[in-house]
Amino acid sequence: MTAPHPLDLSHHFSYASKNRSPSSVKSFYKYFTIPNIANFAGGLPHPTYFPFDTLEATVARPQRLQPSSKDDSKADRVIVPKESKTADPSRKIDLTTALQYGTAEGYPPLFSFLRQFVRDHLHPNVPYEGGPEIILSCGNTDGFSKAIELFTNVWNPDRDWIQQREGVLCEEFTYMNAIQTIRPRGLNTATVAVDGQGMLAYGKGGLADVLENWDFRRGRRPHVMYTVTIGQNPTGGNLLIERRKEIYALCQKYDVIIVEDEPYWNLQFPSAYEMEAHYRGASTEPTPYNRNYNDDGKSSGYAFLDSLVPSYLSIDTEGRVVRLDTFSKSVAPGSRLGWITAQPAVIERITRITEVTTQQPSGFVQSVIAETIIGEQVDDNGSRILKKQAVPSWRMDGWVRWLEGLRGGYEKRMNDMCTVLEENKFLFSENPEKSKITNDHVDHWEVVDRVQMYDFTWPKGGMFAWVEVRVDTHPLRSKYSPRKLSKAFWIHLTKKPHLCLVAPGQIFAAGPKSVEQEYRFFRVAFAPMDPEDVIPYTRRLVEGFRSFWKRENLDGLNDDDDESLTMQEMQLGPGINFFGPGC
Amino acid sequence: MTAPHPLDLSHHFSYASKNRSPSSVKSFYKYFTIPNIANFAGGLPHPTYFPFDTLEATVARPQRLQPSSKDDSKADRVIVPKESKTADPSRKIDLTTALQYGTAEGYPPLFSFLRQFVRDHLHPNVPYEGGPEIILSCGNTDGFSKAIELFTNVWNPDRDWIQQREGVLCEEFTYMNAIQTIRPRGLNTATVAVDGQGMLAYGKGGLADVLENWDFRRGRRPHVMYTVTIGQNPTGGNLLIERRKEIYALCQKYDVIIVEDEPYWNLQFPSAYEMEAHYRGASTEPTPYNRNYNDDGKSSGYAFLDSLVPSYLSIDTEGRVVRLDTFSKSVAPGSRLGWITAQPAVIERITRITEVTTQQPSGFVQSVIAETIIGEQVDDNGSRILKKQAVPSWRMDGWVRWLEGLRGGYEKRMNDMCTVLEENKFLFSENPEKSKITNDHVDHWEVVDRVQMYDFTWPKGGMFAWVEVRVDTHPLRSKYSPRKLSKAFWIHLTKKPHLCLVAPGQIFAAGPKSVEQEYRFFRVAFAPMDPEDVIPYTRRLVEGFRSFWKRENLDGLNDDDDESLTMQEMQLGPGINFFGPGC
Repeated sequence: MTAPHPLDLSHHFSYASKNRSPSSVKSFYKYFTIPNIANFAGGLPHPTYFPFDTLEATVARPQRLQPSSKDDSKADRVIVPKESKTADPSRKIDLTTALQYGTAEGYPPLFSFLRQFVRDHLHPNVPYEGGPEIILSCGNTDGFSKAIELFTNVWNPDRDWIQQREGVLCEEFTYMNAIQTIRPRGLNTATVAVDGQGMLAYGKGGLADVLENWDFRRGRRPHVMYTVTIGQNPTGGNLLIERRKEIYALCQKYDVIIVEDEPYWNLQFPSAYEMEAHYRGASTEPTPYNRNYNDDGKSSGYAFLDSLVPSYLSIDTEGRVVRLDTFSKSVAPGSRLGWITAQPAVIERITRITEVTTQQPSGFVQSVIAETIIGEQVDDNGSRILKKQAVPSWRMDGWVRWLEGLRGGYEKRMNDMCTVLEENKFLFSENPEKSKITNDHVDHWEVVDRVQMYDFTWPKGGMFAWVEVRVDTHPLRSKYSPRKLSKAFWIHLTKKPHLCLVAPGQIFAAGPKSVEQEYRFFRVAFAPMDPEDVIPYTRRLVEGFRSFWKRENLDGLNDDDDESLTMQEMQLGPGINFFGPGC
Repeated sequence: MTAPHPLDLSHHFSYASKNRSPSSVKSFYKYFTIPNIANFAGGLPHPTYFPFDTLEATVARPQRLQPSSKDDSKADRVIVPKESKTADPSRKIDLTTALQYGTAEGYPPLFSFLRQFVRDHLHPNVPYEGGPEIILSCGNTDGFSKAIELFTNVWNPDRDWIQQREGVLCEEFTYMNAIQTIRPRGLNTATVAVDGQGMLAYGKGGLADVLENWDFRRGRRPHVMYTVTIGQNPTGGNLLIERRKEIYALCQKYDVIIVEDEPYWNLQFPSAYEMEAHYRGASTEPTPYNRNYNDDGKSSGYAFLDSLVPSYLSIDTEGRVVRLDTFSKSVAPGSRLGWITAQPAVIERITRITEVTTQQPSGFVQSVIAETIIGEQVDDNGSRILKKQAVPSWRMDGWVRWLEGLRGGYEKRMNDMCTVLEENKFLFSENPEKSKITNDHVDHWEVVDRVQMYDFTWPKGGMFAWVEVRVDTHPLRSKYSPRKLSKAFWIHLTKKPHLCLVAPGQIFAAGPKSVEQEYRFFRVAFAPMDPEDVIPYTRRLVEGFRSFWKRENLDGLNDDDDESLTMQEMQLGPGINFFGPGC
């Protein structure tokens, strides 16, 4: 079987993206490689004028994170020297190169490492000929902004016909920063219904429904999809391979580009399926254990990676998937470093965009991360360059080990939080009469009044639980609208003794249908908490539920100055973004 | 006299930029600042999962660069700790904050330092009320791309009327990467003639001529100007205050936004005026010595800064100047760090753009540079936090001293190169008959055949000399076109024994008029060279001129495969950009 060619996607490119000059510089290499040429041509500052002689860091060992026991605080020192002695650009890590103007694809050693990680380990089974290419980005917000620039034209109602209006498909509740990238361009956001896994392929509000029944009076049928498939933000679902195949087939049918934004990729929680089954008899989702990379092709080479749900890339026969990965959750958000994976012709266009926008991620972060992961440089004779650096660098094994350790740390927080949530969903009546009766009965569950205050699906990945607030069971439900009750509850939670701040569903509602029901949901993050705080804080949260369900009025829960009604705008703040650009 | 309000520029904003949601999050602060609130709302990873415990660097002292004597190689260690003990965000520099999601304006301590530098020292005399605001950028290419996104709409000939086409004014020879930002958007580039100082206000092809005689069949009269006013790339001019006032007045008359891109700001060379006067009797430019910050207002507080030509900001009564500054030449290009200065309403819109594109510069570079410049943190009791850090950080005095030292280093290279260029402009006849006669004369200059091979203006700033190749004096001028001769000469220079690679004028030609004459110019960089190489390399270059002027044919100088004709495309290469994104 020969691998298919990726499709030509140029009909999807925006006007400006089509216009970017093609590259034909390679023919010019010969002049720059003339031995002893005096280069008067370059516009570069002199490297002795970089004030930094070394960059150094104290770095965790990949084994630091031990989910099953105490973390290891040992650390090693990595040093980025002023000048490396190797001539091999894929191994040369030094400040003379890292702090100079570089290549838009990324710092060569880091680019080489990531390209190998992507092609051989993370996605060893991309079906199209030649496999995917990568380019480094300044994180996924940068990556998505470049993808939107590549694939969409701004639509201005005062100037353009409605038939020209383009649109982007997305989950009905999603990462609002992405929506804020789309909306100012005048694009339609076409929301697709979700379940506990993620986007629905079929059924009411599912992808087929949205595409088949597209109302052309709104503009063109959407040709780009924005999706978070692992640890979906905010709903916490993992999209399994069967659903991916259905959605991919629909994207083929309707010629849709899939932009897969995966900051939480390594945070997949197998225990969530087990715990859900333990408490509820069965998980609400099919377990993915038998559906991994190995089933359909080559192993990733690592049991951890093999255990993960495969990307849309693994079924991307046509090259219509653009995937965004980031170091924000695997190293740190302040890295502003990530990479984009797609078919080569798409990466080529994104390279052109990069050259006139970000140019390259900062050499400070690129070199420190390269040194940490690849490090331990040897010169061209095989001698170690930095004698001081006695400890081997992470390399591929250490990098994968680090990712696995991270997953463990977040998985434990998830389990702690969700166990408390699971065991406190119900408010039991305190009616002493009923309680007495109950004690005489064999099965007290049938007679004690119990009220379900909230529901949730165990998050199968990511950093959050998505909690449905059952205001329909509240004693005051006949007196106040569900929305009013929910908003009052949000304020109730912020009051003593609860002092809990949760993210209102409103800030993730991407379309009119989700806006209708947003008040029913809160997103509750476990990731940012200290591990020892998760259980007591979650207990405070469920105690907040209980006390609210016992309230007989909403006194003191009016937000007098109407400020809570601007919650959607919390995303859009003047820099101080309380929920984080990562929310 | 009361300071004028800056103008409302919103009629210049692009459709998408107008659409970006305004900020009203401040009203929400109260919930996040409730003491002991359990924050389930934030979408942030846990800082213990950042693998870096410290970031450290060996950093030059600001006094390292001693142009008049040997450079000082002493260096100090700066340490960015995992956690700082101060609560003051403008002094708190640590990895827990720097590597977390941050604010779009920039890392608070660095932002505070730069804001003070800009408002009190670099531009102490901005005339409008309240003064300018800043936001950090990922360097000037990023800054310009955001300015273009803010001020222009893409124009698509298949979709839009020609009357809707917008345009950008720029110098006729300019930094081509900026043009590559403009052109794919379908905008007109309207080139303005330059002289040794920079853009012409009046005269043929000057700004007034271009704006007054704008041909509306090309589209709207341009409403944005892109300009490099110090060390103009490639021509090396410094635009003096008198010319700035003329150009600013024209921009007021025609309602033009000025985007001032100043990577070379600190590299202003007073000695170029003196040297030019020494060799030629008078400088071709008026000397700027008596026109500095002090003349029209407050001192910058530093003699070095006071000696610089003032920015357009210093005369920006209406708030129509957007200035781009970068650490690329003052620290290192790989920093990908800079800042944008403009009136607050413009910075607010750029902040909105930043939130959905780059989010923030990398925390790695922001924290290391903050620690280097500001460093030496004290806790809230005034005790020094890092005992190890015995040496004081740079602070404002050290930062300005560093900039001055840089200027000195590049100024010396410029003087070395231009002295060789100045003394070898002429080819003297080797005719033995004529030589003999000459020796009998008092003034041998009058009778020896001499031919001027090139001309140049001493660069008053920046990193390059702009050399006019006088192919009109070449013996073969009647046999070959000037363009053909110049292209052959470019190849001749790359051959042994000359081995010189210069940047052809072609790659800086922004419009049809400059394309007509581009073959006459080469840009010759002194900045990237080792100081001891400048004189011998420049001698090789002038020897290349001499030997070409002695040629009797162009044998071997055909670029058979026509590759040299794609020189313009060298800018647009697949990442490996030979001339650097800085050219």
